[in-house]
Amino acid sequence: MRILVLNPNTSGSMTTEIAAAATEAAHADTEIICLAPRFGSVAIDSAAESYLAAVGMMDLVAGMTEAGDFDFDAVVVAGFGEHGRDALAEMLTVPVFDIAECSAHVAHLIGRRFSVVTTLARSIAPIEDRLLLAGLDAHCASVRACGLDTATVDADPEGAIQAIVEEAARAVTEDGADVICLGCAGMAGVVDAVTAKLGVPVVDGVAAAVGLAQAVVGLGLSTSKAGVYAPGPANPRSHWPISPALGVDR
Amino acid sequence: MRILVLNPNTSGSMTTEIAAAATEAAHADTEIICLAPRFGSVAIDSAAESYLAAVGMMDLVAGMTEAGDFDFDAVVVAGFGEHGRDALAEMLTVPVFDIAECSAHVAHLIGRRFSVVTTLARSIAPIEDRLLLAGLDAHCASVRACGLDTATVDADPEGAIQAIVEEAARAVTEDGADVICLGCAGMAGVVDAVTAKLGVPVVDGVAAAVGLAQAVVGLGLSTSKAGVYAPGPANPRSHWPISPALGVDR
Amino acid sequence: MRILVLNPNTSGSMTTEIAAAATEAAHADTEIICLAPRFGSVAIDSAAESYLAAVGMMDLVAGMTEAGDFDFDAVVVAGFGEHGRDALAEMLTVPVFDIAECSAHVAHLIGRRFSVVTTLARSIAPIEDRLLLAGLDAHCASVRACGLDTATVDADPEGAIQAIVEEAARAVTEDGADVICLGCAGMAGVVDAVTAKLGVPVVDGVAAAVGLAQAVVGLGLSTSKAGVYAPGPANPRSHWPISPALGVDR
Amino acid sequence: MRILVLNPNTSGSMTTEIAAAATEAAHADTEIICLAPRFGSVAIDSAAESYLAAVGMMDLVAGMTEAGDFDFDAVVVAGFGEHGRDALAEMLTVPVFDIAECSAHVAHLIGRRFSVVTTLARSIAPIEDRLLLAGLDAHCASVRACGLDTATVDADPEGAIQAIVEEAARAVTEDGADVICLGCAGMAGVVDAVTAKLGVPVVDGVAAAVGLAQAVVGLGLSTSKAGVYAPGPANPRSHWPISPALGVDR
Amino acid sequence: MRILVLNPNTSGSMTTEIAAAATEAAHADTEIICLAPRFGSVAIDSAAESYLAAVGMMDLVAGMTEAGDFDFDAVVVAGFGEHGRDALAEMLTVPVFDIAECSAHVAHLIGRRFSVVTTLARSIAPIEDRLLLAGLDAHCASVRACGLDTATVDADPEGAIQAIVEEAARAVTEDGADVICLGCAGMAGVVDAVTAKLGVPVVDGVAAAVGLAQAVVGLGLSTSKAGVYAPGPANPRSHWPISPALGVDR
Amino acid sequence: MRILVLNPNTSGSMTTEIAAAATEAAHADTEIICLAPRFGSVAIDSAAESYLAAVGMMDLVAGMTEAGDFDFDAVVVAGFGEHGRDALAEMLTVPVFDIAECSAHVAHLIGRRFSVVTTLARSIAPIEDRLLLAGLDAHCASVRACGLDTATVDADPEGAIQAIVEEAARAVTEDGADVICLGCAGMAGVVDAVTAKLGVPVVDGVAAAVGLAQAVVGLGLSTSKAGVYAPGPANPRSHWPISPALGVDR
Repeated sequence: MRILVLNPNTSGSMTTEIAAAATEAAHADTEIICLAPRFGSVAIDSAAESYLAAVGMMDLVAGMTEAGDFDFDAVVVAGFGEHGRDALAEMLTVPVFDIAECSAHVAHLIGRRFSVVTTLARSIAPIEDRLLLAGLDAHCASVRACGLDTATVDADPEGAIQAIVEEAARAVTEDGADVICLGCAGMAGVVDAVTAKLGVPVVDGVAAAVGLAQAVVGLGLSTSKAGVYAPGPANPRSHWPISPALGVDR
Repeated sequence: MRILVLNPNTSGSMTTEIAAAATEAAHADTEIICLAPRFGSVAIDSAAESYLAAVGMMDLVAGMTEAGDFDFDAVVVAGFGEHGRDALAEMLTVPVFDIAECSAHVAHLIGRRFSVVTTLARSIAPIEDRLLLAGLDAHCASVRACGLDTATVDADPEGAIQAIVEEAARAVTEDGADVICLGCAGMAGVVDAVTAKLGVPVVDGVAAAVGLAQAVVGLGLSTSKAGVYAPGPANPRSHWPISPALGVDR
Repeated sequence: MRILVLNPNTSGSMTTEIAAAATEAAHADTEIICLAPRFGSVAIDSAAESYLAAVGMMDLVAGMTEAGDFDFDAVVVAGFGEHGRDALAEMLTVPVFDIAECSAHVAHLIGRRFSVVTTLARSIAPIEDRLLLAGLDAHCASVRACGLDTATVDADPEGAIQAIVEEAARAVTEDGADVICLGCAGMAGVVDAVTAKLGVPVVDGVAAAVGLAQAVVGLGLSTSKAGVYAPGPANPRSHWPISPALGVDR
Repeated sequence: MRILVLNPNTSGSMTTEIAAAATEAAHADTEIICLAPRFGSVAIDSAAESYLAAVGMMDLVAGMTEAGDFDFDAVVVAGFGEHGRDALAEMLTVPVFDIAECSAHVAHLIGRRFSVVTTLARSIAPIEDRLLLAGLDAHCASVRACGLDTATVDADPEGAIQAIVEEAARAVTEDGADVICLGCAGMAGVVDAVTAKLGVPVVDGVAAAVGLAQAVVGLGLSTSKAGVYAPGPANPRSHWPISPALGVDR
Repeated sequence: MRILVLNPNTSGSMTTEIAAAATEAAHADTEIICLAPRFGSVAIDSAAESYLAAVGMMDLVAGMTEAGDFDFDAVVVAGFGEHGRDALAEMLTVPVFDIAECSAHVAHLIGRRFSVVTTLARSIAPIEDRLLLAGLDAHCASVRACGLDTATVDADPEGAIQAIVEEAARAVTEDGADVICLGCAGMAGVVDAVTAKLGVPVVDGVAAAVGLAQAVVGLGLSTSKAGVYAPGPANPRSHWPISPALGVDR
Repeated sequence: MRILVLNPNTSGSMTTEIAAAATEAAHADTEIICLAPRFGSVAIDSAAESYLAAVGMMDLVAGMTEAGDFDFDAVVVAGFGEHGRDALAEMLTVPVFDIAECSAHVAHLIGRRFSVVTTLARSIAPIEDRLLLAGLDAHCASVRACGLDTATVDADPEGAIQAIVEEAARAVTEDGADVICLGCAGMAGVVDAVTAKLGVPVVDGVAAAVGLAQAVVGLGLSTSKAGVYAPGPANPRSHWPISPALGVDR
């Protein structure tokens, strides 16, 4: 089985971390290929960047499809609360997995109420929106933010883990969560730290998505094409895919 | 007052029709400028095209802002159920209005239950999603589709009006709607035809958005920057805005 | 355009204040006429007083209609969370606007989550009820009370503003509101004070209702008569309108 | 135990029918007194009439209280979906029961999904509103109307029963109701007819309210005065109660 | 009238206390018979014990029915938030009342928002589940736990009452409850203590269920057999009822 | 990996069919052991039988645990909409999977709206209840019944498949489902028949649960013991486990 994991931002180090997390979660006989869009933003902290990432991932997949290079059994979109899954589900016949939704699914399977701990407070609303649209909000105890942006997390991983553990502790004691979902991708060591401190299961989105992708592919199932994920009509588009005109390559 | 009305697709005739509808709805002392993105799709019938339109409108506004050309009191996004309003609301200090939400607001003010009649069945879900996220779904009796795509509507406007009237009639008699919202932009004659046949108020989204934009600007209010619409952090982006590299101009 | 603004209580000073707020919010070519019922209560702090106000406003409008004096393009009911809008909407062919609902509509257009700050805690429930019935509760972060009754507010406006600002601050920091709606009519200076202290948009209900009334009338729309707002059957009533028997006049 | 049953309209024959239904449902040692307001409408088919009835019942109770004549253990408001219960609950220390809510409570106790069958279609929305505000809508399968107004029902009771039975049958087969609530007061013979035809339990609102009133009084409980039903402040009112000026008497 | 009150656990002292509470709440001419299952757990503090109790009560009733000993007009299940009511409602033609649901119904009738105060925190979720399934959660302000298990309550009733009063006080001041429901059966003195301290109505579940059972039986109504409570098909069962094989007797 | 699949009824042929379905869905290196309770009902078509099944599965697992025989990595409860998962989750440290919930999770991952097609109409409500409690109801388009009981299905499998296909077709065309979940366990051939006729993905519950069990175990996760699934207190129980007294053995 081959799974394409898409980092929605253009940060190479993030792509590497996500690839590592995905590979660790995958079966030995699953091949993980992790790619980033050919254009976009190095981090995603706004709706604008999220739309840009959605188009960047669409562009990447469209390019691969046109070139006959798309040879995967499933796609994982490794952005927590970000846009784009539905567009890829339309474009592709293989199933597409979103790490926010997959985290919530796994949390439902092992507990009663989950909280998400993300980075900046401004990411709370998009994550709540995604859970609401996915019909996965009823058992969400809270979405909380540790208050650190990507740069700070990179500069001080130990401090970041500490901040996440503290916020997760509040989710457990104040909001009644019995499962914590990590609302960011690719931070090594956080799962172990939170589990050790709080004694509750911790779900990493990339791992959850890889696990569920393997399960769904293993069941022989894929995206329903009988509804909203049917391919759209062939409306003429200008400059599509975009990346050739930008002079960028994988 | 100057209002920028954005047609999310690249169809010139659609831009012209939307401009006419907006101008007709506007006060005499309101100036309407209607523009389309510099790249994208000629019609929007899928999630993929909707994201592309969101980025196209972001690109247009970012280009104008960079060039010092952005001189408007409000922006209207003339796509029904499409993406992008939240990104523009982040980027701008003037208020941004979405025609699907504005239709629903006006429908609430004049009736108890509204139905939306859109073109293709595949557009129903995105419209439901937008109303749900906007917190405007409780009084929505139904979202219905007349089953015609853009090309057919263009080729046979009389037939299209007939199909919309029939679907609106079902919304009234079967779903209990007492207001009809037109889930597409810029069709001349539909409002009059539905009103005449069914005797219920009909809300045109572009007109509704222009009316509410004038009201909000008149109240001296604009987008709150205390929450999710605060500008995002200055993360580095590649190739932004995109259109200069594509060699396109307004 | 002529808008009839109804103060639901019988306080003359309140009528004056509401008239001033409405006039300030109106276009230059909109004429504002502000009236109070011919009988009722000088303040509305209970369900009983709210029903009395509804009948008082119905009585006033019925009297004007019978006398051929009703010549308005829209009606604004200037009671926050109070009864009566639906009855007037049944009785009249021009649209009727409720300040609680209009505040919520405007708040939706400029933010993501709004809080209402009202006077007494006992008014919280009726306001929540109105938002629920109007289908406008999903984005309501909270309804809060500053704890002062009308008399105290009149006696110490500076203290009242201070109390409202403090409660609004809690709405922003504790409940996540990014817009504040003032849940009382006619207090001069509050909007500026809250805006200045908290940096969030503040919506005054009377202004919001006048703005939306102008917008809806401008769109050529009015109350749907196809549903619940159709005029009721002509059941015989005793003593209707009531005020002639009371020997009161405007 | 003495229960005051209030017919919200001024129809003497309706008062007689309601009194009979209440008396039949009451224990032998419960005394039923059924009264109508001193002014108002002979039937209630609109929001305007419903508010008028609320004030009429408030006026009646206020008059009795002032005169020292109020000597009851509970009050039943015999209007289905109409206004006024909350105002009486504020004014009185004895518990007040609404027949729409009481029907729904009894329906919950004996089934899983109930439907209400009322007279005119225009009464559906107010009944839905009442159930929503009372928090009793989740198990409501539907509110349906048989389409006959009061005059027609009076003129042809057999035909009315037939129409109600047919609508109740649709509620059972199409909406999945396993209990029927009669959304009108005082029709003799309907309960037996529907039960006989459909084999489902049928709840008469007046009987349900008398039964629950006896139960709550028997438990030594009454309206909580710790919340929204606390008496309001003593705001000055003009012409209150209203009926003395109208020259009407019980 | 004869009411069978079922203590779901096997504690004899609890059965005695429940019988006393039920008898005190009953009319003089109502006979209360209180029984416990022939096998099961002495206290119910888990889902496993709750299922065991459901089967124990089913076994008891099945045995009585087979022996021709079942001669009651109604059954009360005296477990707060526990399983089994729906099974008994299927098996019997007389109505079956659950004390958690009956508490909530009575609370709705006398207030606007109720809180439940139960023993252990682990009982909160099952009570929330029951209210949700019963469609009685919308007016539930909170379910709170005083933190004491059954043994502690038995050993120190004064301390238990103190803990319950404190938690009820939080429900009133922090959650806005105006009615308190006691989420445990059979504790003498608690109702008086909470009422005295907090001045809000307190609902005891056993009393509420007896009161509502008397009301429903008095109305001549019983469980609808048209829906989910119809008797199931006669599937072969092994070892049913179970108790004969266990060598236990009432 | 070793997964214990529990057939909640006592039918040997059903156990065999479930074992076959589970084995087919499992990885080559996953060992499936399928067992039935030692007492109970041969089919589960009522709440009473569902509780009996829950206790039967608890008894089986308790017996294995006491005997030191419980050596599994996960448990699958193969009853659709039936009780017992929460009790087993309390009792065990390995994760427990319910086929109704797992079907819904998989359906969410591959479509937007799913319908469940079950056997008898009386099973609809319990399935709706389970989805509601699990927080998985928002995207459920409908739960439908084909109207055949177990015996009929056994006697005429071809006819049963035909009936299920027809009901699934209604779910797609009338309710807007784009995924079908089979609300019964162990029917060979149905998945292929529905998929072939309707062209929508079909989810078999046993396969879904096995797939998700493998995924969760593969992620190194298990039931959270920080909340409602913590083991209960050691309350004394009589006759527990039950089966030894019944003289039955595996």
